[in-house]
Amino acid sequence: MPSLPSKQLETFPNPKPARRYEILFDAPEFTCLCPLTGQPDFAHIKVRYIPDEKCIELKSFKLYLWSYRNEGAFHEAVTNQICDDLVAATDPHFLEVTGDFFVRGGVRTVVTATHKKG
Amino acid sequence: MPSLPSKQLETFPNPKPARRYEILFDAPEFTCLCPLTGQPDFAHIKVRYIPDEKCIELKSFKLYLWSYRNEGAFHEAVTNQICDDLVAATDPHFLEVTGDFFVRGGVRTVVTATHKKG
Amino acid sequence: MPSLPSKQLETFPNPKPARRYEILFDAPEFTCLCPLTGQPDFAHIKVRYIPDEKCIELKSFKLYLWSYRNEGAFHEAVTNQICDDLVAATDPHFLEVTGDFFVRGGVRTVVTATHKKG
Amino acid sequence: MPSLPSKQLETFPNPKPARRYEILFDAPEFTCLCPLTGQPDFAHIKVRYIPDEKCIELKSFKLYLWSYRNEGAFHEAVTNQICDDLVAATDPHFLEVTGDFFVRGGVRTVVTATHKKG
Amino acid sequence: MPSLPSKQLETFPNPKPARRYEILFDAPEFTCLCPLTGQPDFAHIKVRYIPDEKCIELKSFKLYLWSYRNEGAFHEAVTNQICDDLVAATDPHFLEVTGDFFVRGGVRTVVTATHKKG
Amino acid sequence: MPSLPSKQLETFPNPKPARRYEILFDAPEFTCLCPLTGQPDFAHIKVRYIPDEKCIELKSFKLYLWSYRNEGAFHEAVTNQICDDLVAATDPHFLEVTGDFFVRGGVRTVVTATHKKG
Amino acid sequence: MPSLPSKQLETFPNPKPARRYEILFDAPEFTCLCPLTGQPDFAHIKVRYIPDEKCIELKSFKLYLWSYRNEGAFHEAVTNQICDDLVAATDPHFLEVTGDFFVRGGVRTVVTATHKKG
Amino acid sequence: MPSLPSKQLETFPNPKPARRYEILFDAPEFTCLCPLTGQPDFAHIKVRYIPDEKCIELKSFKLYLWSYRNEGAFHEAVTNQICDDLVAATDPHFLEVTGDFFVRGGVRTVVTATHKKG
Amino acid sequence: MPSLPSKQLETFPNPKPARRYEILFDAPEFTCLCPLTGQPDFAHIKVRYIPDEKCIELKSFKLYLWSYRNEGAFHEAVTNQICDDLVAATDPHFLEVTGDFFVRGGVRTVVTATHKKG
Amino acid sequence: MPSLPSKQLETFPNPKPARRYEILFDAPEFTCLCPLTGQPDFAHIKVRYIPDEKCIELKSFKLYLWSYRNEGAFHEAVTNQICDDLVAATDPHFLEVTGDFFVRGGVRTVVTATHKKG
Repeated sequence: MPSLPSKQLETFPNPKPARRYEILFDAPEFTCLCPLTGQPDFAHIKVRYIPDEKCIELKSFKLYLWSYRNEGAFHEAVTNQICDDLVAATDPHFLEVTGDFFVRGGVRTVVTATHKKG
Repeated sequence: MPSLPSKQLETFPNPKPARRYEILFDAPEFTCLCPLTGQPDFAHIKVRYIPDEKCIELKSFKLYLWSYRNEGAFHEAVTNQICDDLVAATDPHFLEVTGDFFVRGGVRTVVTATHKKG
Repeated sequence: MPSLPSKQLETFPNPKPARRYEILFDAPEFTCLCPLTGQPDFAHIKVRYIPDEKCIELKSFKLYLWSYRNEGAFHEAVTNQICDDLVAATDPHFLEVTGDFFVRGGVRTVVTATHKKG
Repeated sequence: MPSLPSKQLETFPNPKPARRYEILFDAPEFTCLCPLTGQPDFAHIKVRYIPDEKCIELKSFKLYLWSYRNEGAFHEAVTNQICDDLVAATDPHFLEVTGDFFVRGGVRTVVTATHKKG
Repeated sequence: MPSLPSKQLETFPNPKPARRYEILFDAPEFTCLCPLTGQPDFAHIKVRYIPDEKCIELKSFKLYLWSYRNEGAFHEAVTNQICDDLVAATDPHFLEVTGDFFVRGGVRTVVTATHKKG
Repeated sequence: MPSLPSKQLETFPNPKPARRYEILFDAPEFTCLCPLTGQPDFAHIKVRYIPDEKCIELKSFKLYLWSYRNEGAFHEAVTNQICDDLVAATDPHFLEVTGDFFVRGGVRTVVTATHKKG
Repeated sequence: MPSLPSKQLETFPNPKPARRYEILFDAPEFTCLCPLTGQPDFAHIKVRYIPDEKCIELKSFKLYLWSYRNEGAFHEAVTNQICDDLVAATDPHFLEVTGDFFVRGGVRTVVTATHKKG
Repeated sequence: MPSLPSKQLETFPNPKPARRYEILFDAPEFTCLCPLTGQPDFAHIKVRYIPDEKCIELKSFKLYLWSYRNEGAFHEAVTNQICDDLVAATDPHFLEVTGDFFVRGGVRTVVTATHKKG
Repeated sequence: MPSLPSKQLETFPNPKPARRYEILFDAPEFTCLCPLTGQPDFAHIKVRYIPDEKCIELKSFKLYLWSYRNEGAFHEAVTNQICDDLVAATDPHFLEVTGDFFVRGGVRTVVTATHKKG
Repeated sequence: MPSLPSKQLETFPNPKPARRYEILFDAPEFTCLCPLTGQPDFAHIKVRYIPDEKCIELKSFKLYLWSYRNEGAFHEAVTNQICDDLVAATDPHFLEVTGDFFVRGGVRTVVTATHKKG
C-alpha cells in the first residue's frame, strides 16, 4: 500500500484580493475509516470560501483529502477538522465545509461547518 | 414480534463546541400507526440542528425512530414529540424536525417544528 | 350524481400551541368549473400554515376541497376563498394557499394568498 | 351543475393514411367517481394510436374525457372502456390507453390497455 | 400493538378478460423485519401483471403488504413469496414483483421476480 | 396571414383587494422578430404581480403576447415594454416580467424587469 | 412583416455514405397557425434520419421550419408534411419526424411520422 | 491502517431456484488505486444477476468490495475481475457487473461485463 | 488556425435606464488553456448584471469569450478578469460572473465574482 | 498558442479478450472550428465499444480529442472521422461514437456513427 500524502496544504496569492469573491471546490471523492469499526466511510465534500490574501492550490487540496484515506474519523469531527486546516492555511474572510456522508443505519448525515474572520 | 427499543437517546460530547456548525440527519425509514384506524403510517424524517455541548449519537437515533413502530401517533403531535425529545437530550442551540408523511386521502402532509435556545 | 359535501371544516386542538411550527397540506386533486364556460378546471392546491389553537383535520380538508367540484370559480377568487375559509375555521398565526392551475390558452396560472394574524 | 357532454367522439379523415404514423394525446385532466364510495378519483390519461382512415378530433376527445366526471368507474374497467370507445370510433391500426390513477390506500395504480387491428 | 391483517388476498372478476392488458400497483409503503437482527427493513414494492379471469382488489393488496410488518423476511425470499401469493390468488397470464430495498451496508438491493402462465 | 390582435389589455376588478396576494402567469409561447435580421426569436415569458384594484384578464393577456408575433423587438427592450404595458393597464402594487430567450450565438439571455408602486 | 423564406431545402453530399449512421436535429423553435381559429400553435420538432447520399444542410432546415410561421397547419398534417418534404429532398434510408405540440384544451399532442426506404 | 478483508465471498442457498428471477446490488461505495500513479480511483459498482443454486450474501459482498481499497486496478480489468469472482462463487444463470468510474482527464469511464451460463 | 477576435466589447444604450432590471447571459461554451500544462480547460460562464447606461451587445460578448481560446488562464484569475472587463465596458449598477469549471483532479471548481457600483 | 497533440491513439492489450464486454468513454470536453465561419463549435462526445484484442488508452484518447481544437470540422464528418480512427486503432467487435453538438441556429445536432466487425 502506498504511503499517503501529508496534510500540507499549498496556497497561492489571491489574484484579486481587493474583491470579496467566492470559490467553490466540489469534491465527490472522499473516504476515511469509521473509528469504531474500522470500516470505510464515504462522503462528498464541498468547500466554499472567500479568500483574503491566499487561495487554496487545487492539487494540494486533492492530496489533502486523500490523506484521510486510512485515518479513523467521526463525521462531525472530520468536517470541523477540514474547516480548521483550510482556515489555518489560508486565513480567509469566510469558509464553509460541507461533508455529505453516505447512508449508515438507514440515515444520511450532512455536516456543515462555517468560519467567518474577525 | 420483537420488543422495540426504548426511546433513550445517546449523546456524545460535541467535538467543536466553539463553532456553531450544523448537522443534518436524513432518515427516510420511519413508520408508526394511525391512532384512529391502527393502520401503518410512513414518513421521511429530517433533523437539522446546531449542537451546543452534546451531539446525537447516530445509532441511538436510529433506534429512537424505530421505537415508534408500534405506537399510535398523529402527524402533528409526533413531529413535535421528536423535536421535544431531541431537545431534551441535547439542549442544542437550534433544532428543526421535518416529518414528510406519505399521501393519505389524496393529501401529503409535511410538519416542520423548530426550536431555538434562549 | 352524488350530493357534494358541505364546506364545513373540522378542527382539532393544536397539540403544541407553545411552539410556532408549520404544517403543509399538499393536495394535487382539485377541480372546479370555469364560471364563463362551465368547463372543468384543475389545480394543485398547497396550504402552508402555523396553527394557533386549532389544527385543520385532514379528512375534512379533503371533503372541503371536494365541495368545489361542481361550483364555478375564477382562479384568483377561489384561491382567496380557500384562504378565507381556512383562516375563519382555525384563526392561525400564518396561512398561505397556493393554487397552481393547469394550462388554459397556453398559460399556466399560479395564485398565492397569504394571511398573517394581527 | 351543468349537464355533462355526451360520449360522442368526433373524427376527421386521416391526412396521410398511406403512412403508419403515431399520435399521442397526453391528458393530465381526468376525474371520475369511485363506484364504492362516491368519492372523486383523478387520473392522467394517455392515448397513443396509429390511425387508419380516421383521426380523433382533439376537442371531442376533451369532451369525451369530461363526460366521465360524474360517473362511477373502477380503474381497470374505465381504462378498458376508453380503449373500446376510441377503437369503435376510429378503427385504428393500433391504440393504447394508459390510465395513471392517483394514490389510494398508499398505492398508485396504472392500467394500460392495448388494441391491435386484425 | 394491533393484530395484523391476514395474508388473504381478495379478487374481483376481470372486467375485460378478452384483452391482455396490464395493471401496475406502485406501493412505496412496505416494511418487514430482518430475520438475522430483528431490525426493520423498508422497501418500495411494485406489482405489474396481466390478469386472466381475476384482478387483485386494491384494499386487500394494501392489507396483504401490511401483514409483513412484524415478520422476518430476507429480501430475495419475500419478493418471491409475494409473487407466489399473488399468482396463487389470481392465476394471471403474467406477473412481476419488484422489491426495491433501502440501503444496508452501503448497498441497495432490488429483487425482481417474474411469473408467466403455461 | 391573419391580422394580429391589438395590444389592448383587458382587466377585471380584483376580487380581494384587501389582501396583497400574488398571481403568476407562466407563458411558454412567445415569439417576435429580431430587429437586425428579421429572423424569429422565441421566449418563455413569466409575469408575477400583486394586484391592487385590477387583475389582468387571462385571454387578453394571451392576445397581448400574440400581438408581438410580427414585430421586431430586442430582448432587453421588449421585456421592459411588457412590464410597462402591464403596469399601465393595472397599476399593481408589484409586477415582475421575466423573458427567457432561446439560445442565440451559444448564449441564452434572461431579462427580468420589476416594478414597485410608489 | 417580413416575407418568409421558401420551403426550399438545401442538401450536401453525405461525407460517409458507406456507413448507416444517424443524425438528429432537435429544434424547439417551431410555430404555425391553427387553420380553424388562426391562432398561433407552437411545437418542438425533432428529425432523426439515416442519410443515403444527401444530408440536410442545417441553415436551410432552420429556414424551412421558419417558412411555416404564417401558415395554417393541423398537427397531424404538418408533421407528415415535414416528413414528406425532408424525404423528397434527401431520399434517406430512414427518417422520423416528431412534432410535440403545446397544450390545447388541456391536452398535449405528439405526432411521430416515420419513413423507411424501399 | 486496518488489515483489509479477504476476497472470500459468502453465499446462501437460492430460496426459489425454480424461478429465474433477478437480483441487483447497487453499491456506490467503491475505491481502489490507480496502478500507474498510486492515486485513489472511485467507482459506483452495480451487480445484476439471475441466481442458480446460490445467492451472494450481502455483507460478504460489502467486504469483497472493500478488499480492493489498497489494490492497484485498471478500470477494465477490475470490472472483469469482479465479474469472474462473483461467477466463480455462485455459478449464476446470468451476471452483469457495471463499474462507473469517476472523471479522470475530463473523461468518465463505464465498463460493463456480462456472463451467461452455458 | 484562425486569428482570434480581440477582447473589445461592444455596448448599446440601455433602453430603460430609469428601471433597475436584470440581464442574465448564460454561456455554456467557454474554453481556455491551463497556464501550467497548456492543456485545455472548459467552463460554463454566467453573467448577471443590472445595467446603468450601457448594455452588453450579445454578439461582441460571444466574441469576447472566444478570445480566451488560446490564452493561459487560472480559474480564479480569469473569472475576475471577465468581471473587470465587463465592468470597464459598461459601468453597471451590479455585475456578477460565475465560472463553473469542469472536473480536474476529481474536483469541480466554481468561481463567483461580484461588482457593485459606488 | 501551444502546438496541439497528434492524432496518434495508444492502445493496451484487452485484459479479458474472451468476454465481449462494453466500455463507455463519456467526454463532455470537445471543441473544434466551423469550416465555414471559423467560429468555435462545442460537443459532448461519447464512445461505446466492445474491444477485441486492444483497448483504447484513456490519456491518449483525451489527447486525440484535443487534437481537433484548431481544425475545421463539420458535425457529420467529424463524428464519422472519430469513429474511423478509433476503429483503425483498435479493430473492435463494435464501436459507436455519439457527437452531441451545442445549439446553432436554434437547432441542436446529434450524430451517431456505429461500426460492427465483419
